[in-house]
Amino acid sequence: MAEADYKFEGWLGLDPSSANGNMQWGEFEPKPWEETDVDIKITHCGICGSDLHTLRSGWGPTMYPCCVGHEIVGTVVRAGSQVEGGLRVGDRVGVGAQSDSCRGRKGDCEQCSSGQENYCQKHHTGTYNGVYMNGGKSYGGYALYARVPSRFAVKIPDSISSAEAAPMLCGGVTTYTPLKYHGAGPGKSVGIIGLGGLGHFGLLWAKALKADKVVVVSRTSAKREDALKMGADDFIATDEEPDWARKHANTLDLIVCTVSSTSMPFAKYLSLLKLDGTFVQVGAPDDGLPAINQFALIMKRIKITGSLIGSPADIKEMLQLAAEQRVKPWIQEIPMKDANRAIVDMAAGKARYRYVLYNEQPGVSRL
Amino acid sequence: MAEADYKFEGWLGLDPSSANGNMQWGEFEPKPWEETDVDIKITHCGICGSDLHTLRSGWGPTMYPCCVGHEIVGTVVRAGSQVEGGLRVGDRVGVGAQSDSCRGRKGDCEQCSSGQENYCQKHHTGTYNGVYMNGGKSYGGYALYARVPSRFAVKIPDSISSAEAAPMLCGGVTTYTPLKYHGAGPGKSVGIIGLGGLGHFGLLWAKALKADKVVVVSRTSAKREDALKMGADDFIATDEEPDWARKHANTLDLIVCTVSSTSMPFAKYLSLLKLDGTFVQVGAPDDGLPAINQFALIMKRIKITGSLIGSPADIKEMLQLAAEQRVKPWIQEIPMKDANRAIVDMAAGKARYRYVLYNEQPGVSRL
Repeated sequence: MAEADYKFEGWLGLDPSSANGNMQWGEFEPKPWEETDVDIKITHCGICGSDLHTLRSGWGPTMYPCCVGHEIVGTVVRAGSQVEGGLRVGDRVGVGAQSDSCRGRKGDCEQCSSGQENYCQKHHTGTYNGVYMNGGKSYGGYALYARVPSRFAVKIPDSISSAEAAPMLCGGVTTYTPLKYHGAGPGKSVGIIGLGGLGHFGLLWAKALKADKVVVVSRTSAKREDALKMGADDFIATDEEPDWARKHANTLDLIVCTVSSTSMPFAKYLSLLKLDGTFVQVGAPDDGLPAINQFALIMKRIKITGSLIGSPADIKEMLQLAAEQRVKPWIQEIPMKDANRAIVDMAAGKARYRYVLYNEQPGVSRL
Repeated sequence: MAEADYKFEGWLGLDPSSANGNMQWGEFEPKPWEETDVDIKITHCGICGSDLHTLRSGWGPTMYPCCVGHEIVGTVVRAGSQVEGGLRVGDRVGVGAQSDSCRGRKGDCEQCSSGQENYCQKHHTGTYNGVYMNGGKSYGGYALYARVPSRFAVKIPDSISSAEAAPMLCGGVTTYTPLKYHGAGPGKSVGIIGLGGLGHFGLLWAKALKADKVVVVSRTSAKREDALKMGADDFIATDEEPDWARKHANTLDLIVCTVSSTSMPFAKYLSLLKLDGTFVQVGAPDDGLPAINQFALIMKRIKITGSLIGSPADIKEMLQLAAEQRVKPWIQEIPMKDANRAIVDMAAGKARYRYVLYNEQPGVSRL
């Protein structure tokens, strides 16, 4: 395939203040090309909470300049001679929060050979603010083009629109994967804590997986109606029901917690679990989790665990479920040019429930 | 069976200062007799850390007067007409940290009907500082006699001495149960944090269950030789190996943490686990566990859980293993009259590795 005749441009964070709506449009240097790569002309990119954490260096120092965005949908415009999955120019693909793993290039890797690349311990490259094994930096999807190793570009089923597919690629799979892994389905009662981008997906997946009961836990009842429309069987407003923890104690088999706050009432959340229940933390507060008392664990043998995005195989499985069950995320589409305003609104909690940026003129330089 | 012609006497804690070696010998009123009960003439009682926590009201207000001790061995001297398990006068039995559950008397109980009485959510009576369903208070084994519901008195195999059996009933089963439940055995690498009463049992059981590798984690190397004698394959002294967490990262499948300290290096302990590893907390610090960062959970999908003692079925299974594999706890026997000195020494960490009180003249009143 001929060398690219296009430039890589996007919204760049230059320092932590970029998170306040100060990203700058500019050019960036994609990773050095390898024949296992594809270049993607981006049409859509969801806005994920991780984008904000990273822009403000919330999880540790960010390697500025940084172009965030890891819910990327677009069209393959260049495919290397060694791409995986039969990808071809013209295919519509999605890229989530991980754009590379060791893929066995550092010796045997149990995770990369078993479809669990998200847990690769040898080389995990995030779609932005990461480093590839060939030394190139990774840049995300608030941009015109993206270059990624083909294993991490997943074809999107025809029945799912690009705007709807985009937020599934991180927000969607981050909740889908633990729900599936921990057996959400018939016979199980599932709690989803926090009804934001991740939480609303958790609710949609738990229903699509046919859990007996899905309960949304939120601070106020502001989102109650939305939750019920999305299929929630019950809704707990913790700031408005003084006795909520006792009243709903021992009712849930599985909780997926999308809340990203160090002050969350962790012990009370845990009290909602039945004996042997599982609490999966997927939200990642900048300052860590609140401390818990060991008796919460000991008395009911409950498990606290986490879950990290999903593998390409998980993404394919999720997209299949979404296509079959006609899962429809609640999204708001915003032109790429308004990305700075969008991240500010996102930080203010205004998204209902996921913002998706779209390029009005995909591929057309603005410089 | 005729009414008892003996009195219930023992060491009573009257206030939190009792934990400092100020227990008073005196009489107490056992639970009102029921035909499912047995009375036991106590020969031995192990000293458990819980005894100290309870005497000093460390886990919440204690109902003084309180006679602690829940590693009780003795002889049945009275058996009700409806006892379970065919118990008879003269049988040598042991009682652990739980002396009653709902046993189905408050409607169906999945736990009580499936041999998991330790997780009964309807009525869990501790062997001391508890209340029975008939209103009687529970009193422990630093005493001449104990009265308990027969389901919680387990026959002891002939090949195990009473002094050795006693500490198995709480310290032993508290580590045996999670090791068994989480699959410690061939193919697994197991870590035991803390080499005290519980920890030394954890090491002995993990070896008896044929785990591939058993690693003891302690602050200093003071107990290294002992650990190796007990069968440890490796020993980590965290205060003496500056780089221990990194050096031993990703090496263990399962950790049982017996440490009871709010200042333990929780995150570093977690780093020892492999992907999908399990951390079981059984130690219970008065002030709760340290906070952790969610990334410790998320990046390797590790599980943090707890485990609560063991059921009568677990105790029977453990005693069988101990008999078959000739598991020998390291104990020091101390006359019951010296119980106050013994609890002070226990609190000072002098036990190597479990103190067992014995009645020099079982059944003989001292009042």
